[in-house]
Amino acid sequence: MIKKLRELAELVGGTVAGNGEVEISGIGSLEDAGPSELTFMASPKFLGKLKETRAAAVIVSKEIPQVDKPFLIAANPYLAFAKILGFFSDQPFQDRGVDPRAYVSPTAQIGREVNIYPFVWIGDRCSIGDRVVLYPGVYVGEDCSIGDGSVFYPNVSVYSRTKVGKRVVLHSGVVVGSDGFAYVKEGRTNVKIPQVGTVEMGDDVEIGANTTVDRATLGKTIIQRGTKIDNLVQVAHNVVIGEDSVIVAQVGIAGSTRIGSNVTLGGQVGVSDHAEIEDNVMVGAHSGVVGKLAGNAAYTGTPAMPHREFLRVINVFQKLPELNKRLLELEKRFAALEEKNPSKKEEDE
Amino acid sequence: MIKKLRELAELVGGTVAGNGEVEISGIGSLEDAGPSELTFMASPKFLGKLKETRAAAVIVSKEIPQVDKPFLIAANPYLAFAKILGFFSDQPFQDRGVDPRAYVSPTAQIGREVNIYPFVWIGDRCSIGDRVVLYPGVYVGEDCSIGDGSVFYPNVSVYSRTKVGKRVVLHSGVVVGSDGFAYVKEGRTNVKIPQVGTVEMGDDVEIGANTTVDRATLGKTIIQRGTKIDNLVQVAHNVVIGEDSVIVAQVGIAGSTRIGSNVTLGGQVGVSDHAEIEDNVMVGAHSGVVGKLAGNAAYTGTPAMPHREFLRVINVFQKLPELNKRLLELEKRFAALEEKNPSKKEEDE
Amino acid sequence: MIKKLRELAELVGGTVAGNGEVEISGIGSLEDAGPSELTFMASPKFLGKLKETRAAAVIVSKEIPQVDKPFLIAANPYLAFAKILGFFSDQPFQDRGVDPRAYVSPTAQIGREVNIYPFVWIGDRCSIGDRVVLYPGVYVGEDCSIGDGSVFYPNVSVYSRTKVGKRVVLHSGVVVGSDGFAYVKEGRTNVKIPQVGTVEMGDDVEIGANTTVDRATLGKTIIQRGTKIDNLVQVAHNVVIGEDSVIVAQVGIAGSTRIGSNVTLGGQVGVSDHAEIEDNVMVGAHSGVVGKLAGNAAYTGTPAMPHREFLRVINVFQKLPELNKRLLELEKRFAALEEKNPSKKEEDE
Repeated sequence: MIKKLRELAELVGGTVAGNGEVEISGIGSLEDAGPSELTFMASPKFLGKLKETRAAAVIVSKEIPQVDKPFLIAANPYLAFAKILGFFSDQPFQDRGVDPRAYVSPTAQIGREVNIYPFVWIGDRCSIGDRVVLYPGVYVGEDCSIGDGSVFYPNVSVYSRTKVGKRVVLHSGVVVGSDGFAYVKEGRTNVKIPQVGTVEMGDDVEIGANTTVDRATLGKTIIQRGTKIDNLVQVAHNVVIGEDSVIVAQVGIAGSTRIGSNVTLGGQVGVSDHAEIEDNVMVGAHSGVVGKLAGNAAYTGTPAMPHREFLRVINVFQKLPELNKRLLELEKRFAALEEKNPSKKEEDE
Repeated sequence: MIKKLRELAELVGGTVAGNGEVEISGIGSLEDAGPSELTFMASPKFLGKLKETRAAAVIVSKEIPQVDKPFLIAANPYLAFAKILGFFSDQPFQDRGVDPRAYVSPTAQIGREVNIYPFVWIGDRCSIGDRVVLYPGVYVGEDCSIGDGSVFYPNVSVYSRTKVGKRVVLHSGVVVGSDGFAYVKEGRTNVKIPQVGTVEMGDDVEIGANTTVDRATLGKTIIQRGTKIDNLVQVAHNVVIGEDSVIVAQVGIAGSTRIGSNVTLGGQVGVSDHAEIEDNVMVGAHSGVVGKLAGNAAYTGTPAMPHREFLRVINVFQKLPELNKRLLELEKRFAALEEKNPSKKEEDE
Repeated sequence: MIKKLRELAELVGGTVAGNGEVEISGIGSLEDAGPSELTFMASPKFLGKLKETRAAAVIVSKEIPQVDKPFLIAANPYLAFAKILGFFSDQPFQDRGVDPRAYVSPTAQIGREVNIYPFVWIGDRCSIGDRVVLYPGVYVGEDCSIGDGSVFYPNVSVYSRTKVGKRVVLHSGVVVGSDGFAYVKEGRTNVKIPQVGTVEMGDDVEIGANTTVDRATLGKTIIQRGTKIDNLVQVAHNVVIGEDSVIVAQVGIAGSTRIGSNVTLGGQVGVSDHAEIEDNVMVGAHSGVVGKLAGNAAYTGTPAMPHREFLRVINVFQKLPELNKRLLELEKRFAALEEKNPSKKEEDE
């Protein structure tokens, strides 16, 4: 596929500076783009690389006088890059139908133009939308519903009664609807609390490889529209995650915790049970969250504190040996001084 | 299924206050229970919600005069709830037999009333107990034995020579018996130490989705009776975990470590190799354990310390900038004072 | 298989002290080795156990006068143990061919003497080397190439266009080539950046159960020859890991980070995006790495600092309550002293 630069600019609502007629066959990084490809500069610090790129044209936020290339000028070059990359990489949908080596319950309803690969298992009374793709090894338990255009990559396991919106993407090894981890002690014995709730996901949710989402004890575990979850994340029973949130790899969210909308949790963050993180919060990687984090703010550390406060704390933390030395020194000097000037209190004694 | 309140009270060894003849059709949370359902109050702090519940009756630890409902009084309401929920949610066992689309080695022994789903693979000389359920995509390598009533959810992988007790539940994506991570350097090259040991699990063990349990180098990796492990946990080679312990999500236990009985490890805890955690220990979430933790105590932090001590440490940690400021202030004031009162030592110099 | 001790010594380039004619049938730990087996002592601290072993002979680094056994003397006893264990445990390769219950694209090229088990799926235009073993439930997407002698355990998922070297071992549940986690905000909406890059792995890479390796956004995610990765590790898009490195369980490596050769990352370490860890670095378990770590050194902590510095910091950290008390005490004593000796500044006020 070949497009003129000005056509791509229209596609992303940008403008052209220089020759808009140059023909573009793809998009690549500053280092790798070929002479008929478009590239992008996300930050001025890559100016050196930009000067050496072989690319035919560059997406930038404003013209760069030092560089003699046609420019596609966009308010957010990275966003324009994402959209143009999608334009060049989108594959036409292939309708393979239901492979006879898959198992599909006779009571399941299957939409139009689906791809159900070999070794897929679909349980009784499931509802599978149009253009759904289920790769080999996908398991969908009884009474599930999967919205139009959803894609489950190989070896995904979805337990019974899970409800999934449209265009939901589950990467390989994702498990949805496994039992919540809930026991009550009778003496030393762990008595299982049956997990009879479900999981629901809104439209446009994407979940990374080997992430696990447990079903609720009672009620629902919920992941709302547009939220994106990375690999190896744990979402426990009865958790609710709002819309458009971003959960980075290896985060663990314990039972009954509520995460707001447009929240970002950095990699390996742990959130305790029954915690609450309000809308528009960012939590730095590796942090541990307990209790409630008020909205529209950034937090870091264990326990998580406001990010600026954390920077001040960690700054002193790294100097603790020096701090201790200063304190020791002061104690010595003080003892020497006190010897000369016994305090009132000491005199009283 | 309908039961009278007094019948449910008998079932859990509780008593009734109020009308024991009221008919109960299920159990739900304070918010969600319907007018023919039972609910429960685990803590007095939910009294407000209790006053608004539509439930027919309530499990409590003692009568609540402010609320005009029949009560089921139990020493541990949460335990009674778990048992009654189990009573209402248990499904009759369905005997589907061995699906012809599964692969079962001719030398494997299969018990009675099993459910072996399509796309299951069972290796040579395996012994599969009665009423075992193996969901689609389950792999059981050669020479494994699986006790009566065990359930392996979809896409579980169990390597050869694993021994599993009765009523063991492995959730989707669990891997048991993968090679321990053990190499020895020859120059820079990592020479693999063959992992020829096995894994053994006692009765009533339950393991959460995508958790991994490595086989031993020599000997056995052991998880004893009644221990429950959450999702995405790593159990390394030659680890031994005692009975009735509880390992929360994303914990990592390194090689040859021994965990006692009735131990609780909070989410994301890391335990180093060759460590020892004695019986009845609790380790707080996100902690890092090195060496030995004596029994019957709670620990938190990295490195893990007694929990009360940790609270004192973390309290000062959060005030480090202030501490530093106080120290600076003291240094300044001290310098001023010293100027006026030179100490003996300084005089000597 | 029976070998004389002197034959085993030759095998590993060691020497014999005592009777080299003793016949050895296997190898075991100090506790478990039987009377016709060889054992090894990795450290002098196990001398007590050595005195009680029933083993026929012992691998040691030098003769031990207190013990009356034949010795196999090797510069690195643990390495000799690994090699002899491999010698006794290696199984002859069984050539089972391609099972008819597997799906193999007609355009895939399959090498000689392979084992393709039931329920394996191999996509169009794949190239599968000689003696490759693909266990049940393995998925290999379109246009992949897998080098000779590689083994993929059950339920491994390899997305399209992945290239894997020779003798690569992927344990169960490993996912390679899933989409990198990359979105750009358009308002609150997360717009996906298409992940059109690939993953490449060198020869002799081994990857533990349920580990995930994401494909690059553009270009390649690379794991070089001889690197070993443990279970439940996250390797994000565009990461490059050098040769012979060792990545312990539950490590998370964020996007575009570069890890050198012969690096060791301890369990649960997190490495931020665009970080760089140079050759021969060791990072202690549970650490958080940001920015750049210079080569040939050990680091620990969050943020990671030189290991010796970390030990000094953590030593004071554990005494923070005491430190605070000392500071308080000093403040009190100082106030008392100041009362007697007002400083100049205070006099001016």
